Order: sequence, then structure tokens, then C-alpha cells
Amino acid sequence: MIDLLSDTVTVPTPEMRQAMFEAEVGDAGYGEDPTLNRLEALAAEMLGKEDAAFMTSGCQGNLAALLAHCPRGQEVIVGDRSDLYDFEAGSASVVGGLVLHPVPTEPDGRLSLDNLRAAIRDKSDYQCAPPGVIVLESPHCQRGGRVLPLSYIKDVRALANEHNLLLHLDGARIFNAAVALKTSPAEIAEHVDSVMFSLSKGLAAPFGSMACGSRPFIDRVRRYRKLLGGGLRQAGFMASAAIVALQTMVDRLALDHRRAQLLAEKIRDIPGIRLEPPVIETNMVFFRLEHGGLSTEAFLSALIRHGVRMGTLRDGVVRAVLHYLINDEDIDVIANAVRVVLLAERR
Amino acid sequence: MIDLLSDTVTVPTPEMRQAMFEAEVGDAGYGEDPTLNRLEALAAEMLGKEDAAFMTSGCQGNLAALLAHCPRGQEVIVGDRSDLYDFEAGSASVVGGLVLHPVPTEPDGRLSLDNLRAAIRDKSDYQCAPPGVIVLESPHCQRGGRVLPLSYIKDVRALANEHNLLLHLDGARIFNAAVALKTSPAEIAEHVDSVMFSLSKGLAAPFGSMACGSRPFIDRVRRYRKLLGGGLRQAGFMASAAIVALQTMVDRLALDHRRAQLLAEKIRDIPGIRLEPPVIETNMVFFRLEHGGLSTEAFLSALIRHGVRMGTLRDGVVRAVLHYLINDEDIDVIANAVRVVLLAERR
Amino acid sequence: MIDLLSDTVTVPTPEMRQAMFEAEVGDAGYGEDPTLNRLEALAAEMLGKEDAAFMTSGCQGNLAALLAHCPRGQEVIVGDRSDLYDFEAGSASVVGGLVLHPVPTEPDGRLSLDNLRAAIRDKSDYQCAPPGVIVLESPHCQRGGRVLPLSYIKDVRALANEHNLLLHLDGARIFNAAVALKTSPAEIAEHVDSVMFSLSKGLAAPFGSMACGSRPFIDRVRRYRKLLGGGLRQAGFMASAAIVALQTMVDRLALDHRRAQLLAEKIRDIPGIRLEPPVIETNMVFFRLEHGGLSTEAFLSALIRHGVRMGTLRDGVVRAVLHYLINDEDIDVIANAVRVVLLAERR
Amino acid sequence: MIDLLSDTVTVPTPEMRQAMFEAEVGDAGYGEDPTLNRLEALAAEMLGKEDAAFMTSGCQGNLAALLAHCPRGQEVIVGDRSDLYDFEAGSASVVGGLVLHPVPTEPDGRLSLDNLRAAIRDKSDYQCAPPGVIVLESPHCQRGGRVLPLSYIKDVRALANEHNLLLHLDGARIFNAAVALKTSPAEIAEHVDSVMFSLSKGLAAPFGSMACGSRPFIDRVRRYRKLLGGGLRQAGFMASAAIVALQTMVDRLALDHRRAQLLAEKIRDIPGIRLEPPVIETNMVFFRLEHGGLSTEAFLSALIRHGVRMGTLRDGVVRAVLHYLINDEDIDVIANAVRVVLLAERR
Repeated sequence: MIDLLSDTVTVPTPEMRQAMFEAEVGDAGYGEDPTLNRLEALAAEMLGKEDAAFMTSGCQGNLAALLAHCPRGQEVIVGDRSDLYDFEAGSASVVGGLVLHPVPTEPDGRLSLDNLRAAIRDKSDYQCAPPGVIVLESPHCQRGGRVLPLSYIKDVRALANEHNLLLHLDGARIFNAAVALKTSPAEIAEHVDSVMFSLSKGLAAPFGSMACGSRPFIDRVRRYRKLLGGGLRQAGFMASAAIVALQTMVDRLALDHRRAQLLAEKIRDIPGIRLEPPVIETNMVFFRLEHGGLSTEAFLSALIRHGVRMGTLRDGVVRAVLHYLINDEDIDVIANAVRVVLLAERR
Repeated sequence: MIDLLSDTVTVPTPEMRQAMFEAEVGDAGYGEDPTLNRLEALAAEMLGKEDAAFMTSGCQGNLAALLAHCPRGQEVIVGDRSDLYDFEAGSASVVGGLVLHPVPTEPDGRLSLDNLRAAIRDKSDYQCAPPGVIVLESPHCQRGGRVLPLSYIKDVRALANEHNLLLHLDGARIFNAAVALKTSPAEIAEHVDSVMFSLSKGLAAPFGSMACGSRPFIDRVRRYRKLLGGGLRQAGFMASAAIVALQTMVDRLALDHRRAQLLAEKIRDIPGIRLEPPVIETNMVFFRLEHGGLSTEAFLSALIRHGVRMGTLRDGVVRAVLHYLINDEDIDVIANAVRVVLLAERR
Repeated sequence: MIDLLSDTVTVPTPEMRQAMFEAEVGDAGYGEDPTLNRLEALAAEMLGKEDAAFMTSGCQGNLAALLAHCPRGQEVIVGDRSDLYDFEAGSASVVGGLVLHPVPTEPDGRLSLDNLRAAIRDKSDYQCAPPGVIVLESPHCQRGGRVLPLSYIKDVRALANEHNLLLHLDGARIFNAAVALKTSPAEIAEHVDSVMFSLSKGLAAPFGSMACGSRPFIDRVRRYRKLLGGGLRQAGFMASAAIVALQTMVDRLALDHRRAQLLAEKIRDIPGIRLEPPVIETNMVFFRLEHGGLSTEAFLSALIRHGVRMGTLRDGVVRAVLHYLINDEDIDVIANAVRVVLLAERR
Repeated sequence: MIDLLSDTVTVPTPEMRQAMFEAEVGDAGYGEDPTLNRLEALAAEMLGKEDAAFMTSGCQGNLAALLAHCPRGQEVIVGDRSDLYDFEAGSASVVGGLVLHPVPTEPDGRLSLDNLRAAIRDKSDYQCAPPGVIVLESPHCQRGGRVLPLSYIKDVRALANEHNLLLHLDGARIFNAAVALKTSPAEIAEHVDSVMFSLSKGLAAPFGSMACGSRPFIDRVRRYRKLLGGGLRQAGFMASAAIVALQTMVDRLALDHRRAQLLAEKIRDIPGIRLEPPVIETNMVFFRLEHGGLSTEAFLSALIRHGVRMGTLRDGVVRAVLHYLINDEDIDVIANAVRVVLLAERR
């Protein structure tokens, strides 16, 4: 099965398994896991932040970051199609007493400055939850991996400063963004107060994420990590694989982007396919099935019978995510399968 | 000063003051305030519900209702221009662990069935906060007092039933809605699980609201009332005024509606005025100042110099709210003041 | 019925009713209720604090104070027999994300310095909720109205300072404490960061409490007041009665204390009665029924048949609370009733 | 260094490393990690419960269990020296809106039935947070590994049933309890609604715990797991080690118990040592240093210079925890080191 469901299906490389096998570990509950400490230092350095904390998931990274930024009762301004708003169970409200304030997500993943400005409530009005933090997402998962330009992030930074707000980046796939922008993750992270990025997904570590920011912020994140139950004992096993991921899997992301581009080219002109977004910037290809006929579900099932698995988020968009287990030849197989399924339909 | 800022500026009538003066009271903490008990029975009867609880404000009535309906972690689907979403400090999230999920408010105060349907998340998906309750508002404050038709409320009821959701009505001014629909509040409330209505505003009691619903629901509301600090001792003073309000102030609301209509007619054709909404259904007249020139703030200040106070919610819409302290002659004075201020501007 | 159940059964004096009848009111939601503003200024002045906020109950006053003092996740160190811990539904934990950390309440209402010290967790240990505030109660309701000496409060203040903790006083009956200590409430409040006192109880206003403290603290309290639903519209009715209460009911509390003393003297030697505590410092007389025979419930019922109502908190202690509706002759009637009921039992 | 600080310092066995190296994994976010599924089935079976969920820590296991058991606002009755109360940051209050209600922990780890009974508040009283669940801990960490007898657990079960309360067991080291009681963990777990046990500690898996209970309960636990950020991707790495732990490390716990016993015998009569508790039931030896002179800190430091690390929880008790990395010869070395340090002191 060629699995394009998500880049979360990636399994660790043999080198990661070997690193886990040999990992030097200790009780991180007492701060004594040397490999965890190495990972946290490495991640902080790569993101250009003072410190970083290993979290067991992206959800936990985002949640702890919001809790560490915002006292009880503040608003979190966030895109209405962001993963944080749609796929993290509202946790900042449920367990943190924060109010999620969604604003429209543009087709390219931005939150327009006008909409952001309109969403910033008057801090002095007791009728309103005062705003605390703006959350951006890049690459944007539900917008087909679109990447926020640095100039846009700078604009939002300026707006945040003007209103004395913090800025958090859900950068689950920030290395993909950096590759797409031909820059470093640190140059992106420079404009935000904190960033969460995933170690799984394209980097293929088993699980976990890193929350990065200033030292006092990360101190608070670590306190929440313990409180939420994310404080691990011999965390070094995960950390060892994550270090390998950061050292060996970043540069090759360009390959995934090139293959996503290739796949898009190959299917773009198949009748009944409409790419959405039409621009491929990272490792995702999103498309709709036009002219009716085949439902998304039927299409996905037919595809599986041809050995290819894709997914759908909602609204019927089909999603194909490239990652290191997919090679150049697979692209032809995939494109062929799509073509065959759609042609069969037309007859 | 002719004060149209809000109907919350109403002060109690002499009859209410007299009732307070003579009120029979007891310690409601021990269930021993007879006047409170009478009020709660009266409100329940008028709304056609099993029971009702006196709350110290509309915020508290809505908050306790949401807490009583939804266990920790559920979503509250609510209009993005509702008072509950905009003016209650996000309290359901802040203190209740609920997620506020705003959907667009239509110009007439409805939440479209399509938008509601799209907002109902999959209860079985652990990534999502499961939906718990839909909140409607009628008359709709930020939509100029527009009233939801019964047929619409029935449609939302059907949708809620289909998805096993509860339905709460923020009916702060439900008596205005009933007057506009030429029906009883009970006939409106019949389609919802719970309703909150205000005793102040048009009814002119000093403060407070009633939460109405089934007996077990109101039991839970009362528990939350105590917890939130809304459990009063000699509540009968407020209750006595509230009883007078319910007995004497409901029928006369039609007058406020007629006067709002009259005011709208008188200013509709003044150059530079655009009514928004153009339809006046209850006691509010909203309008925008067109052709620029005069800012909303400057207009309101100039109006005050002519002895008339209006207000604005946001986006620069001017709001004039009619209530029992405004009589027919005042309408002429108001319309004249508006005309003079705008003409002065044009010269 | 001579009602000693609690001083919360007090009804307002005619003077208060008159004040309510004539109250000048406005919409406090817009800061326009002059009587509320007068009350808040008066209370702040009497307590020697920068500012004060009217709250609808003691529960709400304590809750808002704790929320205003402590960010999410901190511990509130509180007596295990305090009203805040026992009778406020755990609200600081339920809605505020604070951890209640009870320490033993001594028979005289103190929390021993050793127990306080032992309860202060290590702020740097992520395994622990960091301590935020210590709460004292004086007079102590469940300890028979015992009053904390100023020297003790100063000692706790010193301990709090040493550990960088805040100090809140649940002074529901602080005027009784001041009378007992022959001092002013301001001299007590001087040693704490904040104090909540009741307007009902001995002062006989219909309901409500005042939270007093620094200006920024009260700003935060007012924000929470709105959020919890305690923001009233025409609050001046309650405020007018409360002002009369503060002006006319404080000095006469000494009478209640003298009568409590008198009652204690008269029943102290009745066989089967054990005063607990034996010392009467304010307006409460607590006693146990010894030698078995009569249960507390049976005793209270029998007493009611003699026209006297007392109460019990728990553990079977009988509680008689003096207040302005009880006069000197009543004391004889009460003592007689107690004697007769107990003698009837012995035969 | 012979490390007796805690059994959390255990590192995985070579067999576990091998199992991780070869682990068959998948994306558990989609339910596709076969090894995780195997672990959860195995744990459920061993505990005699319908289902089980892998959690990243004991804190998270306990927290999710409490949230899954108790709606917002309920009380959790728990020992005042339990790990849940002392070392989990008050998380059930901080993020769950639950009230922690500590009762005294007896020297043998029990919560007396009288104290439990006194702590159960009246569910019908709105002034009180209604009780929801009782939490027991066995073996009891802060009581030197004392084990609750089955008869006691049955008594608490009966009490819980009588008051319609749930019963949760913090069984972090439940396999040690089972070994001590010469029974199976299932026979212990039979009397409780849910149990959390650790995979690290004596079992030596890298980290994590299992929450076990009924199927609907575990469904709710899994929902909270996702929300708290404990939902892992390729969880199978951890699961594979955990399966080996459950298959190979349980039976050998008896050795740790024997060695703890041995160590206790060897140091019991050293002057200046008082075992506390005097009875050794599992893998812990707790003792106090008598006759002053040497502080706990100085003793621990001196011990380290002799190649032995012990720890202290609080109150100066010294704690030595046995585990699979300590063998019979080590016991002699340890006992000798203790003797030498104390004798050095006496001279």
C-alpha cells in the first residue's frame, strides 16, 4: 500500500531505531536523562530560541504554550480552519479557562490583518475576555500546506506589538515551511514568541513535538507538561530518535516537496480533478472531484483497491501527503491509480 | 436628558418601589423568602416551564444555564454577534470548561441552518469537542431587535433533536419578541429546553434575570447559582419589584414598539441616515450615518448637546432603544435633534 | 418565633426600607449608579483600603478575591473548618483552577503557624501546585465566633511575607471582630491584602458583601464580578440599604455580644449543656448536649415548640446567633426554653 | 553508584531494548498501532478489567481517570499523604474543576473509615461540592510501601456503594501489592472501579502507565488522553517495551521485596536508625535518623561518597527503594555504607 493518508504514518528510520536501541537514558523526572537534555538544547538552537521542551504531542505542545502565555480568562485569536481550533478538542478552553476566538482562515492560510484587528477586543471592557495571544499556522494543514510569507508574519508581529499581544506559531511542519521559503526555521521563529513543531510527521520520529521560546516561558511550559502528565521518565528513547530526525530528515524534505509538485503536475489535467489550492508549496496535494459522479468516499475506496491510500479532512477535499516512504516511482503509480479510478467512473 | 442608550437605563416604577418597601422577605439561603418563591413560580408559569430561578444578571442566567446543560468539554454553538459571545467575557469557557463555537449571525439575527449543521462536530471524534447546546437570541440585540420567527425556532429545534443537542434561548427581551409575534412567551419557549429573560431592560425591575426550564435543570442551575455567588439572602426585595414588573410592564411593551416604529419613520428620510436593519420589530432603532463627514462619536456628542443620548455597539452603528420613560412627545424631540445635528453638519 | 438560627435571618430595618424606597439609582453597568459608588467609597474608607466592590454574596466576594489574587494552578491555604472550605461548594477549584489546601482549624479559629508552614509547598517543584494565598477567618463561624487576635494576624502576615504569599481575610463578620477587639475594622484589615465582609448578617442589609483591597486588585475583582454574573444594573437599591447598615448597625453590635454573653451565663450551668467554645467573644453561643439522651435534632424540634429556633452546623453542635431582632427579654425566654426542654428530657 | 533513590531510576532491560528495536508500529492517532493495541488488551486482561489505556505517565493516568469519573464540581476524597494529592500539582482542580478533599493518611496507608465517612459531604446541600470518587493508594509510596489488605479495600468499597461513590486505586506499584498479598492484581482491582498502574518503576519500562476499567470509562479516558496531549503517534515503541515488562518483570518483584527485607534487617539495629514504618511489605525501606547530630541532607551526601544514593520525600525520612538493578551483594555494600556513615558521625 502506498500510504498518503498523512505524514504522521511515517515510521522511524533504521538509524532512529538503532539510536533508540543504544540510547543513554536516565530519570527525566529528576532531570537526569542526558539524551532528553541534548534534544532540548538542539531544538532550541535550531529554532533560535533560548530553550525548548519535548512534549508528547503537538496538541500538548500547543496547549502548554497557550497556558504558559495566557492567564485564565484571556482570548486566543486563531484561524477557524486551524488544526488548533479544529482538532485539539478545544483543550485551551476545556482545561485552561481560555476563550478560543476564531477568525476566518483565508485560502492561503493567512488570517487577514483586518479580521485580526476586528477580533482584538477592548482590554478595558469588563464585558470582554481580553485578548492574549494570536496563533498562526504554517505550513497550513487544512489549506493544503500553504506557507505564510515572512513579510506576512512580520505584519502580524507588528499588529501584535501594537496591541501588546503575544504571537504563537503552530509550526507543526515548520521545517517544510523553511524549505519552501529557502530559509531557516530560526528566521521564521524570530518573529514569534513561541513555536511548536512536530518531531513525527515529515521528520519521522515516533511521536512528540518541541515547544520553543524564552527561558521563563519554557519553564512555565515544563510546569504544565508535568501537570498535564507529559513528564516522562526515561524520555531519552524518544529523544534519541528525535535527535536523529533533526539531524538527518530535514534536508531531504525538499524531495517530498518536489514529489508533491510532480504528483500535482501529473494529475492536474485529469478530467474531474481540481487542485485546491492550485499552488503546491510543501508536501501536500489537495484536490476536489468535480462534475459529481464519484463521491470522495467512493473515490478513496476505489483508490485503495489500486494500492493507494489518500485521506480527506472535511468538505470532501482529497488529501495526499508526501513523505520519506514515497519515492519517485510511487508518484507514477499514484497518478495512474487516480487516472484509472476516474476514467472507470466516466464510463 | 432623553436617554435612549439602552433599556437597561430604566429605573423602577413607583409601584415597584412601593412593593420593595413592603416586601415580605426571609432568608432565601434557607429557602425562606416567600416573595422569591412567588416570583420563581410566576416566571415558570408565564414561560410555560416547570421551574424558574432568579439570577442576579442575564450573564449569570446564561452562564448557569450552559453549565447546567453541558458537562465539561462540550461545545456551545452560538452566534458570532450574540451578546452571549460578545459581552459575557467568555465566561462559559473561562469558568466552565466549555468551548464557544461561533457561527455567523445573519442580518436578521438567525444562524443559518447550513452554518449550524456545518458547526456540529462529530461526537465520536476524540479530536473534537463534542457539541452540547445551540444558543439562539431573540430579539437579537446586535441585529437591531430583530425577532426570530417561530417557524425558524422550530427548524432549529428539529436540527437539535436530530443531533441530540439541547437548545437554549437567550431571550433577554423575550416579552418584546412575544409582543412582536403576537404570541405568548410560553409559545416561544415551548420549542427550547431553556430560556433566560431579563427583569430589568424593558420590564424596568432593578436588576436580575430568570432562568427557566425543567425541574432537574433548574435544580442544577440553583446549585451553580450558589457556587457563582448569586445565592442571595433577603432576595424578596428584588423579587417583589420583579413581580410588579411581570404584572404591569409586559402589556405596555407594544407602546415602545410603536414609538420605535414612529421614530424610524421620522428619521428614515433624513439625508445621511440609513436604517440598519430597515425593519423595526421591537423597541430598537439602529442606523448608520452615510456620506461620511460626521463620525459616530461626534454625532452622539452633538446629540447630547440637544438633550438626547443614544449609543453605539460597535462598527459605528447608532442605537436608540425605546422604553417606558420615553413618551410620544419625546419622539418628536428626538427626531428633531437628529435632523438638526445632521443638517448642521451639512452646512 | 425567636429566631437564633443565624444572623443571616435579619431583615432590613425600617430605615433601610425607607432608604431603598428613596434610592437614587442608575445603570451600574455603565458606572452610573451614584448610590453604588457611594457605598463602595464608604466601605473602602471604613476598611482603610484603596477601593471596594459590592458583591452579591460572601461566596462571590471570597471567590472573586481568590481569582483576583491567584493565577491558575496556585494553592489556597485555608482552614479545614472555614466557611470558605466547607460552605462555598469548592468554587475556587471548580471555576478557578485553584487548589484548596486545608490545614487544621484550631478550636479558637487559628491555623497554627507550624501547620501553615508545613502546608507551604516548594514553589520550584513542578510536582506541586505553588502556594498563592493564605485565608484567615475572623470571627470564626464554625468555631463559635472566636476572634483572631491582632498579634496572631501579624504573625501570619510575617509568615506570608517570608514566603511571598498573599493574605486574604474572610471577615464576613469583621465588625463583630472589631467590636470584640475594641478596635476598628481598618486596624484589622491593615495586616491583610484583602478582606471580604458581609452586609447582611449582623448589619442586616438585605444581602451582599464588600471585597476590599488595593485599587488594581479591586479592578480585577470587578472584572470577575461581571464574569460571574454579579454585575447589577440598578444596584443602588441594595447599596442604599447597605449604606444605612454601615452607618447605623455597627455600633449596636456590642449589644448582641453582651446578649450572647448573657445567654451563655444563663445556660452554662444547666445540666447537660457544655459550651463549646466556653469563651463568648462575639454574637454566637455554641454548645453541646452532654450525657446523651436527647439528640441535637430532637432538642432543636422541642425548642421550636417553645418558640425558639436554633441551628446546628455539623457534628451536633447547637448554634444560637444573636442579632438586632433579639432583645434582653428574649434572652430570658430563650434560656428558659432551653432549661425546660432539657429538664423534660431528664424526667 | 548503587542507586536507591527510587524505582523510577530503572532503565529498560536489554530484552526491552530489543523489543523496541523490532517493534511493529503504526499511527495510533488512527488506531493503527498493533503493538499499542496488544499492550492495552494485555493490561486489561491482567487487571481483570474490560479495557485499558496507555498513558504517558502516572499523573496523566490518575488525572484522566478522575476526569472520566467525575463531572465538573465534584469532590475527590484522597489521602493527605497520597502521591496524587502531594505530587501531581493539584491537576484535577487546576484543569478539571474538581475539588481535592484530603483526609488523614494513617501510618499504614489507610484512610480510616471514620475519616472517610466524615469527609462525605451531603450531596443535596448546594453549599457543598458533592463527593464523586474515593482514591486509595497501594502500595503507599509515602508510607514506605505499605500495602492495603483486601479486607480493607472491600470495606471502602462497601462504604462507597452506600454513598453511591466511585472508587479509584492509585496502584502505581500494584504488582508489588499483589506479590505482597500473594494474590493477582485482578483480585485487588476487582473491588475498585478503576486502577492506574505504572509501567516504569519496578517493571522498568521506559515510561508510562495504564488506566484500567470498564469499556465506557476507558472510552472517556481515551478522549481525555487526546485532549491532554497524551495521544501518541507510533506508540508501539513504548508499548513493545511495556509488554516485555509485563511478561518478564512481574514475577521477579518478590526478589526486590526479599532484598528490602534483608536491607531492613541489616540496618535495623544500627544505632541512630529507626525504621518507619517498621514493617517492610514491598520494595521500600524508610527510616529516620535518631538522636539528632546528622541531618538527613548530610547523611545522604555522606552516603553518596560511599557510592550509595538514597532519597528523602519530606519530613526528613530517608527512603531506599529496591529494584532489579540492585542485587544481593549490593545489600551488604549498602548496609555497610549506612553503618560507616553513622559510626563516623558518632565519633
